[in-house]
Amino acid sequence: MNFYDRLDTAWKFNNSVLCIGLDADIEIIKDYEKSIFEFNKNIIDATHDLVCAYKPQISYYNAYGLERELEMTIEYIKTKYPDILVILDSKRGDIGKTSELYAIEAYDRYKADCVTVNPYMGSDSVEPFTRYKDKGVIVLCKTSNPSSSEIQSLRIKNETEEKKVYEEILDLCINKWNSNKNIAVVMGATQVEELAHIRSLSDEVPFLIPGVGAQGGDIEDVVNNAKTSKNKGMIINSSRAIIYASKDVDYAKNARIIAKQTRDEINQYI
Amino acid sequence: MNFYDRLDTAWKFNNSVLCIGLDADIEIIKDYEKSIFEFNKNIIDATHDLVCAYKPQISYYNAYGLERELEMTIEYIKTKYPDILVILDSKRGDIGKTSELYAIEAYDRYKADCVTVNPYMGSDSVEPFTRYKDKGVIVLCKTSNPSSSEIQSLRIKNETEEKKVYEEILDLCINKWNSNKNIAVVMGATQVEELAHIRSLSDEVPFLIPGVGAQGGDIEDVVNNAKTSKNKGMIINSSRAIIYASKDVDYAKNARIIAKQTRDEINQYI
Repeated sequence: MNFYDRLDTAWKFNNSVLCIGLDADIEIIKDYEKSIFEFNKNIIDATHDLVCAYKPQISYYNAYGLERELEMTIEYIKTKYPDILVILDSKRGDIGKTSELYAIEAYDRYKADCVTVNPYMGSDSVEPFTRYKDKGVIVLCKTSNPSSSEIQSLRIKNETEEKKVYEEILDLCINKWNSNKNIAVVMGATQVEELAHIRSLSDEVPFLIPGVGAQGGDIEDVVNNAKTSKNKGMIINSSRAIIYASKDVDYAKNARIIAKQTRDEINQYI
Repeated sequence: MNFYDRLDTAWKFNNSVLCIGLDADIEIIKDYEKSIFEFNKNIIDATHDLVCAYKPQISYYNAYGLERELEMTIEYIKTKYPDILVILDSKRGDIGKTSELYAIEAYDRYKADCVTVNPYMGSDSVEPFTRYKDKGVIVLCKTSNPSSSEIQSLRIKNETEEKKVYEEILDLCINKWNSNKNIAVVMGATQVEELAHIRSLSDEVPFLIPGVGAQGGDIEDVVNNAKTSKNKGMIINSSRAIIYASKDVDYAKNARIIAKQTRDEINQYI
């Protein structure tokens, strides 16, 4: 099954485009849970019927030597809930052999279904990932952080047109990197006009949309501007607003409440 | 001691700007060495009087779950040869808490002296690193790979001037991110005209120059275009040409021969 078909299956599985970011910070959860794996497991078990994907952010594991907890988390999801996608949020970006090794890290070592990739070094950093035909490659395009415009929104000029850096990256995604139909792009929820603009340029490429919840993106605006005519077209991520819905022993129960609210609110507008 | 002073000390220590990239591939070395750590240790012991820095590329460790070998390698260098800098080549780039965690990964977990950073997400991805005043932050500017121009050399325009994306990143490095005097930039050796141009814009910011050796950059051209009027101004990296000088049990002896040739050739032109 190619990646777009797998994504379609994941969307239909729970009638959801919601992705929960597993940004479990050991410094926060240590007061009420014994390991990141236990925390993730409880979040997953409490929300597995509400999401299309989980997105572990690898820095929480890499910073403290907790790679084994990440391996166990992904193994748990893929064993117990195989239709739900795992997006490894590692934003790796390098070239040649190094980029091939990062693809091995994401797809072979951690067994993720998709991975986020930084395109600053060009095709050399993307193609070692897109070669894995059944896996998803989610390219940073326009991100949700305050300083995202410093590089991404620079106006570029060539002979025939004027556009921004992130539009050039979208061009590369659509016209150069997507021959295996496994490219998606990161489009921040905090940039609603840009969501609509990018969607007008491509009805096919799925968006991974961070910035809903703690970062302040409005769900109605996001969905109305990002949905496609053909399918759901987006994966909407929320991390802290769900996993830290309460910072106490009831965290999983409260995560479920917020996840369900978020999934249902999104579905109102699709 | 601030980072620029530490770099100056490292340059003087062995009268060298040579950096050896520790890109030890377990798939290659397993035929003649028992672990990456043993391989690195032998390379280091054979070349420690010829270099200013070692640069382990983290993907070789992350791909196969060999993080412990990387920790041991850096610990070995910092214990035995404390004046030699360790550059962790991880090219991380993320925002907020995540970026802070990647700084913890580089500086606290692995105890590297410097780290490479991808600037595509803007200041949010650089500032969590530059806060560590005695550590170096090496920002990707113009890289040495074939597709580096796809994004980095896009021509941008604003009201007053026309320049390229990588020049805007250099501007941010010089004017916004360098208040702690700990910024360096990656400038590929395969782009000699660009080396000269960037050097004309800043006599202060050190260059990390990959692409000499296996990637084909010419040493005389590189040094003549990258050196500064005040100090050495550059860290020239070579990885495979040195560590795989011979792929057999004599690898360390042969690595030393090539490292010495390279260091001496560089010094001819400084």
